[in-house]
Amino acid sequence: MVNANQAIPNITDIEKAYSLIEKHIHRTPVLTSRSINSILGCSIFFKCENFQSVGAFKFRGATHAILRLEPQEAERGVITHSSGNHAAALALAASQRGIPAYIVMPENAPEIKKKAVAGYGGIITFCLPTQTDREQTMLRIKDETGAAFIHPYDNFNVICGQGTASLELLQQEPNLDVVIAPVGGGGLLSGTSTYVKGKHQHVKVLGAEPKNADDAYRSLRDHTIYPSEKPQTIADGLLTSLSPLTYSIINKYCDGILTVSEQSIADAMRMVWERMKIIIEPSAAVPVAAIMENPATFQGKRVGVIISGGNVDLSHLPWQG
Amino acid sequence: MVNANQAIPNITDIEKAYSLIEKHIHRTPVLTSRSINSILGCSIFFKCENFQSVGAFKFRGATHAILRLEPQEAERGVITHSSGNHAAALALAASQRGIPAYIVMPENAPEIKKKAVAGYGGIITFCLPTQTDREQTMLRIKDETGAAFIHPYDNFNVICGQGTASLELLQQEPNLDVVIAPVGGGGLLSGTSTYVKGKHQHVKVLGAEPKNADDAYRSLRDHTIYPSEKPQTIADGLLTSLSPLTYSIINKYCDGILTVSEQSIADAMRMVWERMKIIIEPSAAVPVAAIMENPATFQGKRVGVIISGGNVDLSHLPWQG
Repeated sequence: MVNANQAIPNITDIEKAYSLIEKHIHRTPVLTSRSINSILGCSIFFKCENFQSVGAFKFRGATHAILRLEPQEAERGVITHSSGNHAAALALAASQRGIPAYIVMPENAPEIKKKAVAGYGGIITFCLPTQTDREQTMLRIKDETGAAFIHPYDNFNVICGQGTASLELLQQEPNLDVVIAPVGGGGLLSGTSTYVKGKHQHVKVLGAEPKNADDAYRSLRDHTIYPSEKPQTIADGLLTSLSPLTYSIINKYCDGILTVSEQSIADAMRMVWERMKIIIEPSAAVPVAAIMENPATFQGKRVGVIISGGNVDLSHLPWQG
Repeated sequence: MVNANQAIPNITDIEKAYSLIEKHIHRTPVLTSRSINSILGCSIFFKCENFQSVGAFKFRGATHAILRLEPQEAERGVITHSSGNHAAALALAASQRGIPAYIVMPENAPEIKKKAVAGYGGIITFCLPTQTDREQTMLRIKDETGAAFIHPYDNFNVICGQGTASLELLQQEPNLDVVIAPVGGGGLLSGTSTYVKGKHQHVKVLGAEPKNADDAYRSLRDHTIYPSEKPQTIADGLLTSLSPLTYSIINKYCDGILTVSEQSIADAMRMVWERMKIIIEPSAAVPVAAIMENPATFQGKRVGVIISGGNVDLSHLPWQG
């Protein structure tokens, strides 16, 4: 059994988060595709966080966490260890508040990610590509600077920020039967399920996860947080494992987790690119793949899908050798 | 000197076209990107015809031409020879009116294009990949079926349909200094320049063309329609040459044609994919490349760009070897 010591957020916390961040984020569109609806046999409403600042929903949580800092705390800056969308989001949100963002990245992170974080004004420190060195480097810089650590998902304010994507989705499309979001560390799914269940208890909330990184599925099944061990998946945003906080929330609100094959993820991603002419990253294709793999579950339903992001290395696409 | 015997359309013709097709087409969004504006030093309003039905503006002209057919004429169907977006557009527009569309395609056309046309219900006849066999096959089937030939651009009604993209653009963003569109056969640029100049004479209208397929640029310079001879460009929608009709219109209304390098086209396309998370085809990137190559012309201006389409073979991207 898992015991989280942190309080878990409720719908009011997400509404308050929204009032705080609304001016700073994009209200992303909800798009539909007749051809995809016809292929998949349901009506899908794509909440396009690939059009969010930094190309991912992560900007919502990072912005909220930063705006919640007291002035004295904020001026010392923020810090995180990440090489992905959270790092870029934290860097941009910090620069918009005019405070420093210290980002610890493994030295072997892709050039494209180093450039993105630097482009948003993040102050990068490289570390060895091990969990130990990552954490030690982070702690050292935190000590030196006094920066506030903003965890990518094991953080109440981050989760409330991520939940605002669903708040907008239900404003834009109030009548849904199911909402589905990808799950990696669980920040997005925590915010999504908290908001959707708080607003409409009858709406089903599902997570979607690569079969090759199914630690969240197993953690919920066995009531134990399993670490995510060297997962081999193209969904590079979903490599992390649940935290005590996200486990508790997802365990409370979420109706289930669907796992999908790598082939389905690539197929779903390509289908969205080809049919909708929008760029979504592999992690964002995971819920679409879950609909493809489970037609009976979604047949005739009105389905909200959180498209988590659109940051893709265009030189390495999954359908290329 | 060129003499066109056909009447040229005016803004009222485009407004009438719009009333006729409005219910059948998508009103595509106008998107903006702060990062691209900051890179290029102007304010760009992207009219996103990549989100149009069949993924290209061509659906406007095809729909209009088909809706203009008298019932007896329509029931015999329509025919064209094309392997590109016009063929797909004609097939879909015909199927929506419940009439047959005969499409003559070279047997070596890419599989992806054959599939698209067939998927929209087009009746394909393959021909040898020569201009002569293409035309002879077309005439034979036209004789057999009595179908109406809908030329991809040398057609009054097609041009009026293409002009409706600018009608919507100026409704969505009335205050522009320049509008720029790609030019191949000139249907889009004809409709664009007719509408924009008819509405606001002071707004500049420019065409954009690959340097490697600069027949429109040379034709306007020398007042002679040059054929487009085996152009080597990634902008596969811009391989055709002007017709007497499109020449006359563009010569009358257009303020100039900018030509761009292949490298700029690929760079512009990639910039839009990466920054805006939308898929645009190489031909649609040509006007963006023209802005990149001519900063002084666009500096500080409010620029409307017609993004002509988003049909790309995702297995062969220009930045891959």
